[in-house]
Amino acid sequence: MTKALNSDVESALHVIGGRPISRLFLVACGGSLSIMHAGKYFIDRQSRNLSCDVYNADEFVCRDPKRLDQNALVILCSQTGTTSETVRAARHAREKGAMTVAMTLDPESPLAAGAECVVRYRASYTTGIPIDAADSNYAILSMLLAGILRMTDGVDLIPPLLRNLECLQPAIDQAQEVFAPRFEAFAPRFKERSAIYTLASGPAYAAAYSYSSCVLMEMQWYDSQAIHANEFFHGPFEIVDEDACFIVLIGADETRRLAERARDFLLRFGSPENVLVLDAEELGLSGLNDAFKGYFAPLVFFDTLWRFAYRLAALRHHPMLEGRRYMKKISGY
Amino acid sequence: MTKALNSDVESALHVIGGRPISRLFLVACGGSLSIMHAGKYFIDRQSRNLSCDVYNADEFVCRDPKRLDQNALVILCSQTGTTSETVRAARHAREKGAMTVAMTLDPESPLAAGAECVVRYRASYTTGIPIDAADSNYAILSMLLAGILRMTDGVDLIPPLLRNLECLQPAIDQAQEVFAPRFEAFAPRFKERSAIYTLASGPAYAAAYSYSSCVLMEMQWYDSQAIHANEFFHGPFEIVDEDACFIVLIGADETRRLAERARDFLLRFGSPENVLVLDAEELGLSGLNDAFKGYFAPLVFFDTLWRFAYRLAALRHHPMLEGRRYMKKISGY
Repeated sequence: MTKALNSDVESALHVIGGRPISRLFLVACGGSLSIMHAGKYFIDRQSRNLSCDVYNADEFVCRDPKRLDQNALVILCSQTGTTSETVRAARHAREKGAMTVAMTLDPESPLAAGAECVVRYRASYTTGIPIDAADSNYAILSMLLAGILRMTDGVDLIPPLLRNLECLQPAIDQAQEVFAPRFEAFAPRFKERSAIYTLASGPAYAAAYSYSSCVLMEMQWYDSQAIHANEFFHGPFEIVDEDACFIVLIGADETRRLAERARDFLLRFGSPENVLVLDAEELGLSGLNDAFKGYFAPLVFFDTLWRFAYRLAALRHHPMLEGRRYMKKISGY
Repeated sequence: MTKALNSDVESALHVIGGRPISRLFLVACGGSLSIMHAGKYFIDRQSRNLSCDVYNADEFVCRDPKRLDQNALVILCSQTGTTSETVRAARHAREKGAMTVAMTLDPESPLAAGAECVVRYRASYTTGIPIDAADSNYAILSMLLAGILRMTDGVDLIPPLLRNLECLQPAIDQAQEVFAPRFEAFAPRFKERSAIYTLASGPAYAAAYSYSSCVLMEMQWYDSQAIHANEFFHGPFEIVDEDACFIVLIGADETRRLAERARDFLLRFGSPENVLVLDAEELGLSGLNDAFKGYFAPLVFFDTLWRFAYRLAALRHHPMLEGRRYMKKISGY
């Protein structure tokens, strides 16, 4: 059975359809920003008529790009819809005459109230209730972007996208099985280390960014960094020794060979037991077509890697969400 | 005395002038890539007619953005002109019909041979001979971009730019004096630590990126990361404790308040003796006009911070360039 186009996405596309859009801005903070990197990859690959920029929300407001005008569409995302920088960014975009779409869990939130269109998605992260990944912010963004692409470039990828979204949750469930023994083996080795880096290229950089910033640093207090798999060779690789811990995400997209090269270097100059490799070829993505295989691999990686983080948390006796000391705990900074 | 427009830049602008350019791609690796982030900031602030993307060179080739066509201008940079990914990127861009400009020290290099226009710059980094910062890749890029802006948007910032470039080297020399005592005080505290982060926003992110990747990681083997000053609050700030070491670059640009906020957080929740703050207001930039003050502050920061790195290197008995174990030492990876 093919998924239906999300009804909020459909409504938003109807409103956007009335506007001459040639500039796309993807704006958010932290984990919500990370998915935008994959969105830009998709637009870069598919669109000739749409420029696409990704900005942290506060950077976006202060930088105030000159191209932000009535020909611009700004897609913003915040789980709770209360992230103050993102709420401000929506207001700023509207003042400049741009069209705004808010992605959020809460249609009553300040972000939703501040944007012209609201697109709801679901998350298990905050509720604890399992969702179908096709309803996640990552998947919903793909629907929005495919719809916009149809308008701006006359390329209709919505039918294959909807078929592909059917395969997504099964691929995630399968990945959990495939990687569980590997996580079990690596967690005791990574547990006492101070630093863990995540390497990726192309859309998989989205998963690396989110995992390093919002999981390893935020929830487990590791020194961490998402390093682009080729930039790795232009500085960061000098830190590699047999104790250095790396997670390498090898995507199913056009940049795959960049991450393969980083993996090969690490297996040669680091220690194989400290290099946790997740390869999209191990995922159950064979049902997906080429336009989306690369796009969805990062979502599978990211969902899977939560399990690894919980495993580390258990071994380190450092709880995940409850272990934070500043976020949502203190104010006035 | 006002500087003259670099003659290579002038020639390149003459060639570019014959082309209908609406898409700008800034492409390089590592330290050469870092300056492109500041270039994009300048174009974002000043241009309505030019989209601007920054890519690692190998990512650029594999991603192969659909907008890379005969309306595109690709500016590439490599010190030696031999960085294989960047040489490949120039070839790829030409195959797609785009116009190419190579920035390099060596006009006989493969990169220079592969591009339509060559713009030489100078660097003290490789030769050890002091240069005027107005001849650096960073400054030469600003000339190129101001010239392109004049064509695409009819805004002529070249005269104020050339006047401002006169103030640059004196500002750097003055910064060395201002910061020397602070570096002397912080180096013994940072020397034994495993991780040092660099925080910045806007164009100053260029300096943070380069310093973390190509100096602290590459030449001193610290765990390090350039963290965007607002993204800091959406994950990474959870690692802050009284031992965490940070360098905060506070620019003179429109995003200044983002870095001020990060500084204030660190001074409150970290230890002031582990938070090295460099503020553009301490720099001798009063002679610069507003369009360029923000743009040039990162170059001053970066030049100044070399001194801090050499101070750390001396205390750690870990030489800078000679201390590398992989770059230019091994091959076949």
